[in-house]
Amino acid sequence: MNKQTNFEGYEVGYDIPALPGMDEADIQTPCLILDLDALERNIKKMGDYAKSHGMRHRSHGKMHKSVDVQKLQESLGGAVGVCCQKVSEAEVFARGGIKDILVSNQVRDPAKIDRLARLPKYGCRTIVCVDDLANVADLSKAASKHGTTLEVFVEIDCGAGRCGVKTPEEVVAIAKAVAAAPGLKFTGIQAYQGAMQHMDNYADRKAKLDTAIAQVKSCADALEAAGLKADLVSGGGTGSYYFESNSGVYNELQCGSYAFMDADYGRILDENGHRIDQGEWENALFILTSVMSHAKADKAIVDAGLKAQSVDSGLPVVFGRTDVKYVKCSDEHGVVEDPQGVLKVNDKLRLVPGHCDPTCNVHDWYVGVRNGKVEVVWPVSARGKAY
Amino acid sequence: MNKQTNFEGYEVGYDIPALPGMDEADIQTPCLILDLDALERNIKKMGDYAKSHGMRHRSHGKMHKSVDVQKLQESLGGAVGVCCQKVSEAEVFARGGIKDILVSNQVRDPAKIDRLARLPKYGCRTIVCVDDLANVADLSKAASKHGTTLEVFVEIDCGAGRCGVKTPEEVVAIAKAVAAAPGLKFTGIQAYQGAMQHMDNYADRKAKLDTAIAQVKSCADALEAAGLKADLVSGGGTGSYYFESNSGVYNELQCGSYAFMDADYGRILDENGHRIDQGEWENALFILTSVMSHAKADKAIVDAGLKAQSVDSGLPVVFGRTDVKYVKCSDEHGVVEDPQGVLKVNDKLRLVPGHCDPTCNVHDWYVGVRNGKVEVVWPVSARGKAY
Repeated sequence: MNKQTNFEGYEVGYDIPALPGMDEADIQTPCLILDLDALERNIKKMGDYAKSHGMRHRSHGKMHKSVDVQKLQESLGGAVGVCCQKVSEAEVFARGGIKDILVSNQVRDPAKIDRLARLPKYGCRTIVCVDDLANVADLSKAASKHGTTLEVFVEIDCGAGRCGVKTPEEVVAIAKAVAAAPGLKFTGIQAYQGAMQHMDNYADRKAKLDTAIAQVKSCADALEAAGLKADLVSGGGTGSYYFESNSGVYNELQCGSYAFMDADYGRILDENGHRIDQGEWENALFILTSVMSHAKADKAIVDAGLKAQSVDSGLPVVFGRTDVKYVKCSDEHGVVEDPQGVLKVNDKLRLVPGHCDPTCNVHDWYVGVRNGKVEVVWPVSARGKAY
Repeated sequence: MNKQTNFEGYEVGYDIPALPGMDEADIQTPCLILDLDALERNIKKMGDYAKSHGMRHRSHGKMHKSVDVQKLQESLGGAVGVCCQKVSEAEVFARGGIKDILVSNQVRDPAKIDRLARLPKYGCRTIVCVDDLANVADLSKAASKHGTTLEVFVEIDCGAGRCGVKTPEEVVAIAKAVAAAPGLKFTGIQAYQGAMQHMDNYADRKAKLDTAIAQVKSCADALEAAGLKADLVSGGGTGSYYFESNSGVYNELQCGSYAFMDADYGRILDENGHRIDQGEWENALFILTSVMSHAKADKAIVDAGLKAQSVDSGLPVVFGRTDVKYVKCSDEHGVVEDPQGVLKVNDKLRLVPGHCDPTCNVHDWYVGVRNGKVEVVWPVSARGKAY
């Protein structure tokens, strides 16, 4: 087989960066690659952790936006379903055969509510978050129209300062309205503390979660006292899942980044002061990039810039190298300091992106590699699904 | 016609945010919208400027990645062709019927060189940049193999500190090699000063361009002395085109952002100290976003976050409003300060993105609006084309 085409003569480069069976050296850059061994170890490890702690793990599909990765999380990591942030993402996962879907977000636009209410027709459990009494009637009306049931999590703002209500009274009021509304079912609590996930220090994160857990417990207790026990109390991310798992309050995790890791998460420290990308989780996701100019002796210009990644959480880190450093990013270029001039044109580097979620969202494909060969090429199924 | 479907029953929301004929109020968010009146005025203005200054204008397609926008720049603004940064972008423009294409970048990977060398078969003039003698033989071999001609610009690093050579001697050496190579034609100089485009102060920008122009002139003179006159000397951006146009050295402009504008460019000042988005150019590109939660009285949460834009050059600015402010961006959410509580759930805002190029690259569609109606929905034809 010609290295640049598959047996159908389909060409690599324009629409797809690689084909299964190719040597890793022939992958077209820039693109996302997944180290499948590392990915599988991460997924298995989180699955084992959740199981041993009696937690459901609903893996966060907003991170990878991939039906294939989600299915691996379910088959290998025992994930019970997916969470995602947009109706259009939920549609992708439903059409891909995922059977338990949480839109961990508010849905307010009438057209989106209508689409959401049709999702259970795919045979999937469909849960949505609510933080406003006014939303309950709209959801109920749409579910009734389509003859479906939408389950509802009341969202608590437990520190992220974004969506969600804060007091037990507000939580109970919304849960009561949901329980009384045709087509809706009150199922539980959404309580994701997003603001602390990236704090470096373990004790700082723990302090934030202690506060959140106390708040969530008071809401869960108030619900139970009102005869509306939450079946599911859901939350937890890569920087906090051990706190939720040992809280006695939460029973469902929503971790996403653990599977791929990124430079920003990698810098946070575990209980023993070790970076979490040096033991707890492995880097499985990389931007593969090539040197395309070395006209200055001490500077290599690579082909991955702002259109191959998001730099909102900092620049990417060159994986496994201390002799070269990615120091600047423009639209289509990266500047790599190469003080000893060790890089040559067409050399390839693996970059650990600063922030995996929005980086995955600019790519169409994951190239899965193992032992120097391309094993799979998975679509980023929900890329750009923002509506 | 039902507002949410077209006459074929095709549904808005999952794959496309709007359909022609819809009211602007029914557009699904988040998405990119183009104010067609403003866009046309910008394009016409730059075209008139270039014409009156005897300059060719090769509009930069890396910004919009859209065959439709490019065609408007050619028909309405007299643009002579396109420049772009990647072979895959050039393929999109060639297949879209654009007849004069510059890849304003180095192409070094063998598979990409092979694709580049086939492009002239679409009937388009194809120009590429070179900053390394070793590249000349590879380009020549590929062009000869395919029986095509690749034209070459020698790239000068005139301040961007990225690709390109610096001295007249290096420029002449590469140009000589190109002129002697089968399948190649030496056509001119690429000299884009990218590093100064976003400097706020006009005099600071002018000082950088004065230096660049002197450097480019010495290279152009050396080429002429060597019997290799540059037919085209190409460069210039939205923050500098008046300097190149009056230099007596350049004869081709490469402006991109002027057509759409963004918040970062908007802040730079013209000769009279006025922001260039308040007179020189109009904001034609917006991210349309909806309020999806207002659970806190002084904070509206909107549905455009990091997956609807790039924040590398700062947060977006709410267009035409001083009462509310976009202050924080996470993956799928934006936090808008609303101290007086003037916003309601499902209200829509127009955001001016911080940086247009990488923002356009995360979207699939431009929704063109005029007089409150959707007039066109154009694909971001080269979105994700990074190989």
